[in-house]
Amino acid sequence: MKERKPEKGWKNKVHEIIYEADTPMGKWFDILLFILIIISVLLVMLESVKGIDAEYHKTLFILEWVVTIFFTIEYIARIVSIKKPLKYVLSFYGIIDLMATIPLYLSYIFAGSQALLAIRSLRLLRIFRILKLVRFLGEASQLKKALKASRAKITVFLFAVLILSVILGTVMYLIEGDEAGFTSIPTSIYWTIVTLTTVGYGDIAPITPEGQFIATLIMLVGYGVIAVPTGIVTVEFGRQGQGKKSPGDKGYVHLNTQACPACAKEGHRDDAIYCYNCGSKL
Amino acid sequence: MKERKPEKGWKNKVHEIIYEADTPMGKWFDILLFILIIISVLLVMLESVKGIDAEYHKTLFILEWVVTIFFTIEYIARIVSIKKPLKYVLSFYGIIDLMATIPLYLSYIFAGSQALLAIRSLRLLRIFRILKLVRFLGEASQLKKALKASRAKITVFLFAVLILSVILGTVMYLIEGDEAGFTSIPTSIYWTIVTLTTVGYGDIAPITPEGQFIATLIMLVGYGVIAVPTGIVTVEFGRQGQGKKSPGDKGYVHLNTQACPACAKEGHRDDAIYCYNCGSKL
Amino acid sequence: MKERKPEKGWKNKVHEIIYEADTPMGKWFDILLFILIIISVLLVMLESVKGIDAEYHKTLFILEWVVTIFFTIEYIARIVSIKKPLKYVLSFYGIIDLMATIPLYLSYIFAGSQALLAIRSLRLLRIFRILKLVRFLGEASQLKKALKASRAKITVFLFAVLILSVILGTVMYLIEGDEAGFTSIPTSIYWTIVTLTTVGYGDIAPITPEGQFIATLIMLVGYGVIAVPTGIVTVEFGRQGQGKKSPGDKGYVHLNTQACPACAKEGHRDDAIYCYNCGSKL
Amino acid sequence: MKERKPEKGWKNKVHEIIYEADTPMGKWFDILLFILIIISVLLVMLESVKGIDAEYHKTLFILEWVVTIFFTIEYIARIVSIKKPLKYVLSFYGIIDLMATIPLYLSYIFAGSQALLAIRSLRLLRIFRILKLVRFLGEASQLKKALKASRAKITVFLFAVLILSVILGTVMYLIEGDEAGFTSIPTSIYWTIVTLTTVGYGDIAPITPEGQFIATLIMLVGYGVIAVPTGIVTVEFGRQGQGKKSPGDKGYVHLNTQACPACAKEGHRDDAIYCYNCGSKL
Repeated sequence: MKERKPEKGWKNKVHEIIYEADTPMGKWFDILLFILIIISVLLVMLESVKGIDAEYHKTLFILEWVVTIFFTIEYIARIVSIKKPLKYVLSFYGIIDLMATIPLYLSYIFAGSQALLAIRSLRLLRIFRILKLVRFLGEASQLKKALKASRAKITVFLFAVLILSVILGTVMYLIEGDEAGFTSIPTSIYWTIVTLTTVGYGDIAPITPEGQFIATLIMLVGYGVIAVPTGIVTVEFGRQGQGKKSPGDKGYVHLNTQACPACAKEGHRDDAIYCYNCGSKL
Repeated sequence: MKERKPEKGWKNKVHEIIYEADTPMGKWFDILLFILIIISVLLVMLESVKGIDAEYHKTLFILEWVVTIFFTIEYIARIVSIKKPLKYVLSFYGIIDLMATIPLYLSYIFAGSQALLAIRSLRLLRIFRILKLVRFLGEASQLKKALKASRAKITVFLFAVLILSVILGTVMYLIEGDEAGFTSIPTSIYWTIVTLTTVGYGDIAPITPEGQFIATLIMLVGYGVIAVPTGIVTVEFGRQGQGKKSPGDKGYVHLNTQACPACAKEGHRDDAIYCYNCGSKL
Repeated sequence: MKERKPEKGWKNKVHEIIYEADTPMGKWFDILLFILIIISVLLVMLESVKGIDAEYHKTLFILEWVVTIFFTIEYIARIVSIKKPLKYVLSFYGIIDLMATIPLYLSYIFAGSQALLAIRSLRLLRIFRILKLVRFLGEASQLKKALKASRAKITVFLFAVLILSVILGTVMYLIEGDEAGFTSIPTSIYWTIVTLTTVGYGDIAPITPEGQFIATLIMLVGYGVIAVPTGIVTVEFGRQGQGKKSPGDKGYVHLNTQACPACAKEGHRDDAIYCYNCGSKL
Repeated sequence: MKERKPEKGWKNKVHEIIYEADTPMGKWFDILLFILIIISVLLVMLESVKGIDAEYHKTLFILEWVVTIFFTIEYIARIVSIKKPLKYVLSFYGIIDLMATIPLYLSYIFAGSQALLAIRSLRLLRIFRILKLVRFLGEASQLKKALKASRAKITVFLFAVLILSVILGTVMYLIEGDEAGFTSIPTSIYWTIVTLTTVGYGDIAPITPEGQFIATLIMLVGYGVIAVPTGIVTVEFGRQGQGKKSPGDKGYVHLNTQACPACAKEGHRDDAIYCYNCGSKL
């Protein structure tokens, strides 16, 4: 019993540092992780620029190893300090963490697997998690709620836009043909969406008068159509603002960043003693 | 009488399956139709890609026949099972259904009429009808109502934009001329709409300083002008939403009124399995 | 006296037909004018298309003369039937009417003055006047009111955008230079506005990494900035809708299309006996 | 004492003219400064156009000197007439004023430093200060307030867009590669932002089917995403308008353009006797 206790204490401490941000150590760890993720993404970016890679290849390679070693330690610590490691390993963030760590090791086994390093940019998503701590939390959650509330409407809308694009794209393919770049129906649909969304690259553009006429119609339709998602989101924002709840209101509870040591679920009540998800003691 | 009844019953059953969706068979038919329409459109798309058509021509051709035969049976069944067949045949969907069915047959009479297959993409519109069944109906009808209510205003607006485009297009034609691609007034108007709607292909772009100056003015006008349809639709959405009472107004944190059977604490998350207070199973 | 009366009666009748739309004849005249203006603009468009002009030059030329003769008669009738002809001749519409009529005559005196025909597109503005009659009037006036109410705010906004564009354009000129197409500061400012308004032709595009970085910042700024006019107009629309007056309300009077025979001012009350502008009997 | 008083009076008068706009002289000075700043920026623009510079080099050079001399006098007068000159010299506007004045002098010492003249465009920012006097002040401050109130939300939003762009840009780099112009991850991210913001230059555009497919997804995402800042700003504008205060309201005070002679802070109450910032007598 005596042997287990300190070990458990050590694991608990690691868990507190890595998974939570309520202690000073936990905050420092999050800041360090934040910086290292940014650096790791910048490294991948710089390596992709031929000129920079040619000149500073060695420096970049060393830094790459520093980041990889830190990520390896972090990954192992995450597995060790959690009660149900498999749940973490198979979770969304668990898989991303692994994929951000192994490419450099793999590159010694399979040549060219260094390209997988780019997957590391997905680790940026963890930044959203880290930022849960800062004051922007309220704003972000309001944005998220408004977007969630208008999700169904926007889905219906995008679906209608897609069907419209398929029909209009097919029409343009029949009218314009190969010369103007409308080489196939999929390409034609691609062009229609480029036009409807007012992106308008110009890599493909109608050259026949009929094609230009229909393109004009598509643009004017797009003009009215672009108003729809804006309208949906704006109204939703307005609603969020009207019924705004302040921390003093009934039914509003502060959820802290504490993570369950067993299942890593976050968002427990401040006065919670047990995890709401798995029932383990927090 | 005895003879007619079973026949009528058989017709009724077919009618129920094809035109309705309240019976299990009707639902399955709709799902099958949905899938076959998607496949038929994908087939037309794939055939238009030269590389794919060259390699898989035979497979695509067989699938094309499968779809065509199903569509033929469906078309005949629709005519047979309805009381007033002519009304269906001459209806919007009736004409589209026919046009989506016959191209392959026609291709044996008139060479090249296979191009008509592209018309099939119009059958996608039927998907909207099929989707009437699903839960998005509410959202879609709200969207439709808001757009209908703002139709008159948007028509006036588009009309004003068109007149403005003709005038500005003519001015640009006089200023820029052939060199920059403004080869005729219609082309010039096409360019003006491309600019006003902020699509901006760049296939035609002003090169003289005066032309660029006026283009700048057009863009700034377009900046203010693009706000108008958005404003119209947003206000309309807001109005639609005001009289709405729905469970869509999901709160901050989903705390329900469920009480823990062990400690009677309330305010659990909707997805809680265990009590946050005592750890008992809820 | 006997001589003057019928003349005055004749003049009055012509005035009623041309300037007003309450009599059947007046309505028919407006519709005819509407059609002829559209035709005259289409003629100018078609003439500008080289291929069409080469083939149908004679037909277009004859039609051009038909339109010009009608416009000449209309112009003379407008002068004759009004009490103060000079006021009409020097008014905005008077000048446009003249400029739309004379180019063909002038082309016999000055070679090449046929290009002035393009000015005719300005006559399209009269269509707005003609449309005063139709049911869209209410919608259009609401749009106009909302835009007028937000004019001051949008002016401030466009002014700020312009200053921002000058500063950012100058910065891009210093960074990018001639190679990428940023040949002068005005061109650079043109590019900045093309980018800020999200038009993005691509005729000029940054090629250095620093230029692309600043371009990215400009786009993200434009992202936030494009929201401003939309926000202004939307709020204004919302306000217009709230205080909407229906025909039954107090203080709402129906204004007819009757025009004062002396000063041609429109918009008199149904029960008006004297012109509100010059005091002449209606 | 007798000697100092008139000097102080002279300094005070200069201070009133340069820093304030309540006296007729002060107003005239502001108008003159406004015009000269516009001219100075136009001069820099015209010099950057090769054709114009070649022909009118001498005229532009003389005008350049006229502007520079006026700016020099103004700069010295600003320093002399203020009680704490160092505060002005090191202030934001103080540094810009200096940088707008010296390039021509520097060009005699360091060849090519004339390029610094472009910095002068920053002086346009002072126009915002001058315009404080005109009636647009109210509108501008309302715009500013709405933008300030939505700053936090827009920051969160732009941050999310940036992370999304890095991830999507990396994906496009892996898919498209060098051929289509996606030469490095930073370039790829640049392209993603160009697409997400619907600018769409077309200097880089996907050519593989997979790339075009993902580009389509990015555009549709951008479609929904562009609605967010608009929604935020619109709701904020709506709020500003609701609680609008009129000059008669309590708690609304008129702030004049008087500037503190000691610290140059503006925006004092009409009945203020001491500067609210440094406590000096006004």
